[in-house]
Amino acid sequence: MALKTAEEYKESLRQMRLNIHKFGELIEDVTSHPATKNTVEGHASLFRAQHDEKLKDIVTTTSHLTGEPISRYLSVIRSADEMIANCRMKRFAFNLTGTCTGGRCVGWTSLNSMFITTYDCDRELGTDYHSRLLEWLRDAQARDISIAGALTDPKGDRTKKPSQQEDPDMNLHIVEKRDDGIVVRGAKVMICGVAAANEIFILPGSAYGEEDKDYAVSFVIPRDAENITIVDGREGKEGFDIPNTCGGITQAYLFFEDVFIPKERVFMCGEYQFTRSAVFNFIAAYRSGIGGCVAGQGDIKVGAAVLTARANGLSARVFRDKLIRMYINNETTFGMGIAASAMGKKHASGAWQPDMLLANVNKVHVATLPYDTSRLAQDIGGGIAETGCMPSSEDFTSGKYGHLIKKYMKAAVSGEARARAARLVEWTTIGAGVPGCMHGGGSPDGAKLMINALSGLEEKVGAARRLAGITEDIPEPQRKR
Amino acid sequence: MALKTAEEYKESLRQMRLNIHKFGELIEDVTSHPATKNTVEGHASLFRAQHDEKLKDIVTTTSHLTGEPISRYLSVIRSADEMIANCRMKRFAFNLTGTCTGGRCVGWTSLNSMFITTYDCDRELGTDYHSRLLEWLRDAQARDISIAGALTDPKGDRTKKPSQQEDPDMNLHIVEKRDDGIVVRGAKVMICGVAAANEIFILPGSAYGEEDKDYAVSFVIPRDAENITIVDGREGKEGFDIPNTCGGITQAYLFFEDVFIPKERVFMCGEYQFTRSAVFNFIAAYRSGIGGCVAGQGDIKVGAAVLTARANGLSARVFRDKLIRMYINNETTFGMGIAASAMGKKHASGAWQPDMLLANVNKVHVATLPYDTSRLAQDIGGGIAETGCMPSSEDFTSGKYGHLIKKYMKAAVSGEARARAARLVEWTTIGAGVPGCMHGGGSPDGAKLMINALSGLEEKVGAARRLAGITEDIPEPQRKR
Amino acid sequence: MALKTAEEYKESLRQMRLNIHKFGELIEDVTSHPATKNTVEGHASLFRAQHDEKLKDIVTTTSHLTGEPISRYLSVIRSADEMIANCRMKRFAFNLTGTCTGGRCVGWTSLNSMFITTYDCDRELGTDYHSRLLEWLRDAQARDISIAGALTDPKGDRTKKPSQQEDPDMNLHIVEKRDDGIVVRGAKVMICGVAAANEIFILPGSAYGEEDKDYAVSFVIPRDAENITIVDGREGKEGFDIPNTCGGITQAYLFFEDVFIPKERVFMCGEYQFTRSAVFNFIAAYRSGIGGCVAGQGDIKVGAAVLTARANGLSARVFRDKLIRMYINNETTFGMGIAASAMGKKHASGAWQPDMLLANVNKVHVATLPYDTSRLAQDIGGGIAETGCMPSSEDFTSGKYGHLIKKYMKAAVSGEARARAARLVEWTTIGAGVPGCMHGGGSPDGAKLMINALSGLEEKVGAARRLAGITEDIPEPQRKR
Amino acid sequence: MALKTAEEYKESLRQMRLNIHKFGELIEDVTSHPATKNTVEGHASLFRAQHDEKLKDIVTTTSHLTGEPISRYLSVIRSADEMIANCRMKRFAFNLTGTCTGGRCVGWTSLNSMFITTYDCDRELGTDYHSRLLEWLRDAQARDISIAGALTDPKGDRTKKPSQQEDPDMNLHIVEKRDDGIVVRGAKVMICGVAAANEIFILPGSAYGEEDKDYAVSFVIPRDAENITIVDGREGKEGFDIPNTCGGITQAYLFFEDVFIPKERVFMCGEYQFTRSAVFNFIAAYRSGIGGCVAGQGDIKVGAAVLTARANGLSARVFRDKLIRMYINNETTFGMGIAASAMGKKHASGAWQPDMLLANVNKVHVATLPYDTSRLAQDIGGGIAETGCMPSSEDFTSGKYGHLIKKYMKAAVSGEARARAARLVEWTTIGAGVPGCMHGGGSPDGAKLMINALSGLEEKVGAARRLAGITEDIPEPQRKR
Repeated sequence: MALKTAEEYKESLRQMRLNIHKFGELIEDVTSHPATKNTVEGHASLFRAQHDEKLKDIVTTTSHLTGEPISRYLSVIRSADEMIANCRMKRFAFNLTGTCTGGRCVGWTSLNSMFITTYDCDRELGTDYHSRLLEWLRDAQARDISIAGALTDPKGDRTKKPSQQEDPDMNLHIVEKRDDGIVVRGAKVMICGVAAANEIFILPGSAYGEEDKDYAVSFVIPRDAENITIVDGREGKEGFDIPNTCGGITQAYLFFEDVFIPKERVFMCGEYQFTRSAVFNFIAAYRSGIGGCVAGQGDIKVGAAVLTARANGLSARVFRDKLIRMYINNETTFGMGIAASAMGKKHASGAWQPDMLLANVNKVHVATLPYDTSRLAQDIGGGIAETGCMPSSEDFTSGKYGHLIKKYMKAAVSGEARARAARLVEWTTIGAGVPGCMHGGGSPDGAKLMINALSGLEEKVGAARRLAGITEDIPEPQRKR
Repeated sequence: MALKTAEEYKESLRQMRLNIHKFGELIEDVTSHPATKNTVEGHASLFRAQHDEKLKDIVTTTSHLTGEPISRYLSVIRSADEMIANCRMKRFAFNLTGTCTGGRCVGWTSLNSMFITTYDCDRELGTDYHSRLLEWLRDAQARDISIAGALTDPKGDRTKKPSQQEDPDMNLHIVEKRDDGIVVRGAKVMICGVAAANEIFILPGSAYGEEDKDYAVSFVIPRDAENITIVDGREGKEGFDIPNTCGGITQAYLFFEDVFIPKERVFMCGEYQFTRSAVFNFIAAYRSGIGGCVAGQGDIKVGAAVLTARANGLSARVFRDKLIRMYINNETTFGMGIAASAMGKKHASGAWQPDMLLANVNKVHVATLPYDTSRLAQDIGGGIAETGCMPSSEDFTSGKYGHLIKKYMKAAVSGEARARAARLVEWTTIGAGVPGCMHGGGSPDGAKLMINALSGLEEKVGAARRLAGITEDIPEPQRKR
Repeated sequence: MALKTAEEYKESLRQMRLNIHKFGELIEDVTSHPATKNTVEGHASLFRAQHDEKLKDIVTTTSHLTGEPISRYLSVIRSADEMIANCRMKRFAFNLTGTCTGGRCVGWTSLNSMFITTYDCDRELGTDYHSRLLEWLRDAQARDISIAGALTDPKGDRTKKPSQQEDPDMNLHIVEKRDDGIVVRGAKVMICGVAAANEIFILPGSAYGEEDKDYAVSFVIPRDAENITIVDGREGKEGFDIPNTCGGITQAYLFFEDVFIPKERVFMCGEYQFTRSAVFNFIAAYRSGIGGCVAGQGDIKVGAAVLTARANGLSARVFRDKLIRMYINNETTFGMGIAASAMGKKHASGAWQPDMLLANVNKVHVATLPYDTSRLAQDIGGGIAETGCMPSSEDFTSGKYGHLIKKYMKAAVSGEARARAARLVEWTTIGAGVPGCMHGGGSPDGAKLMINALSGLEEKVGAARRLAGITEDIPEPQRKR
Repeated sequence: MALKTAEEYKESLRQMRLNIHKFGELIEDVTSHPATKNTVEGHASLFRAQHDEKLKDIVTTTSHLTGEPISRYLSVIRSADEMIANCRMKRFAFNLTGTCTGGRCVGWTSLNSMFITTYDCDRELGTDYHSRLLEWLRDAQARDISIAGALTDPKGDRTKKPSQQEDPDMNLHIVEKRDDGIVVRGAKVMICGVAAANEIFILPGSAYGEEDKDYAVSFVIPRDAENITIVDGREGKEGFDIPNTCGGITQAYLFFEDVFIPKERVFMCGEYQFTRSAVFNFIAAYRSGIGGCVAGQGDIKVGAAVLTARANGLSARVFRDKLIRMYINNETTFGMGIAASAMGKKHASGAWQPDMLLANVNKVHVATLPYDTSRLAQDIGGGIAETGCMPSSEDFTSGKYGHLIKKYMKAAVSGEARARAARLVEWTTIGAGVPGCMHGGGSPDGAKLMINALSGLEEKVGAARRLAGITEDIPEPQRKR
């Protein structure tokens, strides 16, 4: 089947069962509801790019399964070059939509992680998950669907394991195994882009031991499957106070109240030994690619800040040092993702595994540098952009004092253009357009632990000892009693 | 007259003419409207503190004019100790209300600035502004009013002076001088706490030359004076998505459409030579005191972050290094304000002038460190606190799925308590509770220029030359042609 | 007796027993040996300042014991103003000498610490240390001596307490108590300014428990007392490769091989309960005052960097942003010391105790910001200043190629002036003139632990809970088992 | 001819004419003189690695000219993989020698730059430089020589161009063109590794215009050619105060007093149009590869810091957060170099050109992060490592007090082992082992200007304008008059 058009994609969303709620209400049409339409629009523009001569190489590739042109978001990454293309596409997508198109990326990373994990699992345990995954993927490529991904469980009491929780549902788990599939219960929370997704790819939320084997579960499911209830967060609003209509973020709580998953869509079912692999393979790719996202978001911050400065009547030259700092921040997260991609290695399954150490170093940058970039954007944008403390779009049209607002908001350009520019700074730095750089894809503290584990400390100590000409042994001291 | 109670204060606001608008509508009662009531409540709590045995020494002092007890916000600061008390009160006020009570601080700083400026102006030009100011102040102390302050003009085209603007109203200016007063036109923008203020103290927005003498104007005016129209920004919302009801921020655009100011309330009227003094004296006190504000806000970020971590089931011990960094940030802005206060000097008028160099160094910290503190608060608070990507308060009460939200939001505490804690992190780090640290009281770039001017560079170069044993002259090179 | 002149001071050093060694040799005259003469010269300039009309108020004050003029370094600090004067004098001293005059500051801080500690000890345990201290101090003021201070013990195995060490001498301790005094054995290491000191004030190196009571010892002793052997570190060199001859640093190892201390010079002898007080009172004053030192050193870095830039032919204007960052770093450590001083409180003994929280925050800045200032100095100074990779002063005078060096080193000024400027950058940023900001006065990690202890975390959490409208209890979680 | 052994390499240095001076004296043998032997030893170990089965793939490759095995330092980099191998080799070389082996890297980068530049020059101007370069390179590969590179001119008055200088020799220039070659006069300064080099590759020091065409000169010359006089900087010293004998840094001033360069060794002679290309192609490769150097140096800092901590009796676990920060710094400069390599492109000549934007971003990191890493190493190493303030190696052997030093320096290990570890921290953070990260390969300010030029600002502004829904034009404001 051909690559979908933007309109076909939107139509596919309209055909789905209604199960997304917002502010206590059921959303009737995700493609037009204020809370979800920007997000859908952002995803649609990626489908549109598939048919644009200048853009299609960025967003499509060739299926290694069928040789057909497919969306990159449905491809298996098999080389450094393809992983680099991943980073580049993510940066492009942010520039195109202004924000995260999480209804595609996380699903993609999940399927790549399980591509490797199922391969290893089958080889070791004699299961047949890998072929199930290939079967599903071939079909998904043919249907050109949009897939969100979900890892994060509610977790409940963080001091206890899943099976120790008072309420066993605090982590998504298998409640019944049947011949034709499984039944699961629980929730996945803070899941990005669900409103724009056709299906959801589920991964275990953490690495588990045997006692938690019912939580070792991975599958892919239509977003509108029976017994799934979704509540979306983040705010939507009409008017230009949210200036960007090219993209948006939704983040959802997904409740699974005894949901049936057919066997052919199940890729892990109790093999707790492979939960670590599922999570680690996800992390390696995710923490590399996210550098492109953050760089793309940073590109927009640069543009929005300069736009506002110029609207204020100030030249970009005044802010050269600050802009250079922003460029450095952007290129650093982008570059570290490229480096992790380039330094990766080929897995036996044929998939490419980015370098884990560099990917985790990048995660720490991703959780830090964008905050600095945001601060600089607000610095450049001036007081008007800092806290969004300006009249609303409704005030602009007031018959009583709208003319005063337009008069006094005017500077180098009209008051509305200036307000829109400032709102874009606000939206990208403290508003609804900010992706979750800090904890998305895991916390920076988790990344630091992995960096520590991968650091090769003892080799460095050995080299230092040799260089210092020390022959005596200098062991790690015993812990103080 | 006695110090007002919180209720008397609120009643005084209710007695005022209605002239504040929001989202295109006139606000009928600032003490109960969702957009303004939190702000009023925050200010009211300062009046309440005046009658609390344990708190009254923090918020009141003795009038040097009458010997009566008065609000510190209506006092003339006459010593290092009083300036230090200023810093402490500001930190206290943030802890009390969670945010800025700008309807008091800026007015206070303005009257202190003009106390010095009118004294110098009278001595040099033979005017009588200082006695007018004293007269008004005596009365203001007796009435125990709340005073906002306003400096920032719309400014229009930043490459041109006020008198060169196409539209002369881009900066507030005198349009008529009469025997009994003056008439002014223009606007002041992004003015904090106006909805909670009884009067507004106006300062010139910048230092002006003779060609702009009509813009050299300072006065104080009831907030509800004839021909003043106000439009407020920032969002208000019911439900616990904005969890703090102890305080809030409003920031307004004030339009002056030929407003008459009686002579006895005018403190500058064309004396452009003293605009620099008005602005500089404001800056010195403002940039010292704001260190206390930012530290107080930082205290709340610490508390909110730990509260959320504990609600997530995690111990504060895990985050010790991050918390220490937050403490350091908080104490640094607080401490630098104290230092600027302590290193100040006495002006001939009897007022205390904080050290300008240290005050400006603090401004740069104030524009930088809180961003780091916010990042750390989000780091500690976890994904739930990072982007506010959780169900709304409406969703909690949904008959259809409210029980699911409560079930899955629960961790160490109930879902609602956890959501409230996370919302407080959001509100203090990217939400409506964030004060304008970056550009409030002037931009950090402006502060840097003052630091540069006050740096004493040539003395340092001279000392280095002496220490290096260089006898040869090493002059500053000529500019390249 | 009158305040000493620089010459009288140097003569007093020459009269002392020779017991300082360097590179394996005994130093015959500390006032002329290359390894020590710069340090002595730096200290001498402080004596010279005592007789300079413009400077004497900076370095002298009035004895509260006798009413006579005395060196500030021999005074008891009794008010915020005197503590602020301390900070200012330290900044001045760095500007005067280019570096640390540790043969005075640490001794001063030690005597102030023990002034408080002996007072409390006497009140609680009925000892008579305070009067001994006063007696000695009165005499020390009369003799106008220079006093180094010593806390740091060799410590041996850091996982064990002093009394648990294999070798009991790893910390200085009492080996015999006699009627007329005590005998001590052990060492104090990395002690600053010993070569320039007449006496050494000894403090316990840490807070001890009862089992280590023999290590609870404080006294003051002539530097040349019998059985004290001293080995000095840091390098001295002739020629202008070390360009500054106005000051220098020595840092010594002091070995006590059964040294007798007369009773009247002993201020603690086994009262382990007061070791914590001795250390904490030292810390509070030291970590406040050191902000002035670091700022003074930073002033020189600014001057040296600009001097080198100008010698290279570049204007200071080019580096404005970097210079502003350097000013901010300098004023921050200075200002935080001022703040700690201003926020202190009066002790029952009459001494002033700076604020412990702010003092420790400053310690962290002192261990961080100067590194940034150094980096910027090297950035501004250019390649020539970065690594000192230029011909030596010997090469300048070579008959064979000295003319080539002079020819090619010349830029805006002569080659020698340029080399001297660059060497001053090197000396102040990576060379012998760098004081030990990181670990001097204790490590930054130790300071962080104190910040943590003094943070008032639970109050902040309580405030956040109130603001978030949470009624439920949110306790610190139990540790995971 | 075969790859040289370490001994053959050293012998080749001994065969050269003596023309290197230090502290006013001529160095008789660079392989044994204290000022140069460590540097030579470091370079020799790279020759040794050529014959080590486990290491040879790191340091050798196949000549694209002859198909023979050659040193990588003499290869033309023709692919991303080879450029990545460059980064890796540099990191390896730092781990092997503890410091910079500048007598190889800069020459290598220079020849690669001129490989591209001569190709373009020949194509445009019909010259024959490229074939001359190939001829020389083939021979250099066969001889397996070590080549330093030299760009930096003395420059004199920085406000003037080379031809405007009072003394025309302030930049190296052609004084005579002859049929068989050219004669040059001037100097190159701060040239790394000259004492360890057989030849020197000269590049123009900057991009020049037509008026400075005599300064547009590139060639390669034996280090001991007639009329070249060399003076080396940096200090050498016997004893373990400089603990590392596996490597060292020399940095030299090279004086050219009418040196004749045979025609076949001249690769640019007046073609000023290609000076920019020569410099830029150098920069792109140099600023990518240097990330590996800085990471390697950082590896040693990690090892040295932990070694010292353990020698002090402290566990590496205590410093985990600091170590992680050091790993992040190291991997960031390494990773950004990898990224610049991976994102490069193929030049028509067959050479690989790394990405200029990423390379320059890395240069800024290289000028910043190592300072942070050094600070952390000193933090971890403790007071003993901070300022090198400990007894010298001479003191350890003193008959009089050497036993005291050994006794009191002992902690978890012997005093000497502990001193060596601490000296290695000192040597790598403030001592002779610190490479010139700040200005080596050009200043960070220069890199920032290139980042600015390559930023694509207007595209970002355009994207922001589209996203903000602004149709109005928002041009860059005119400069204020």
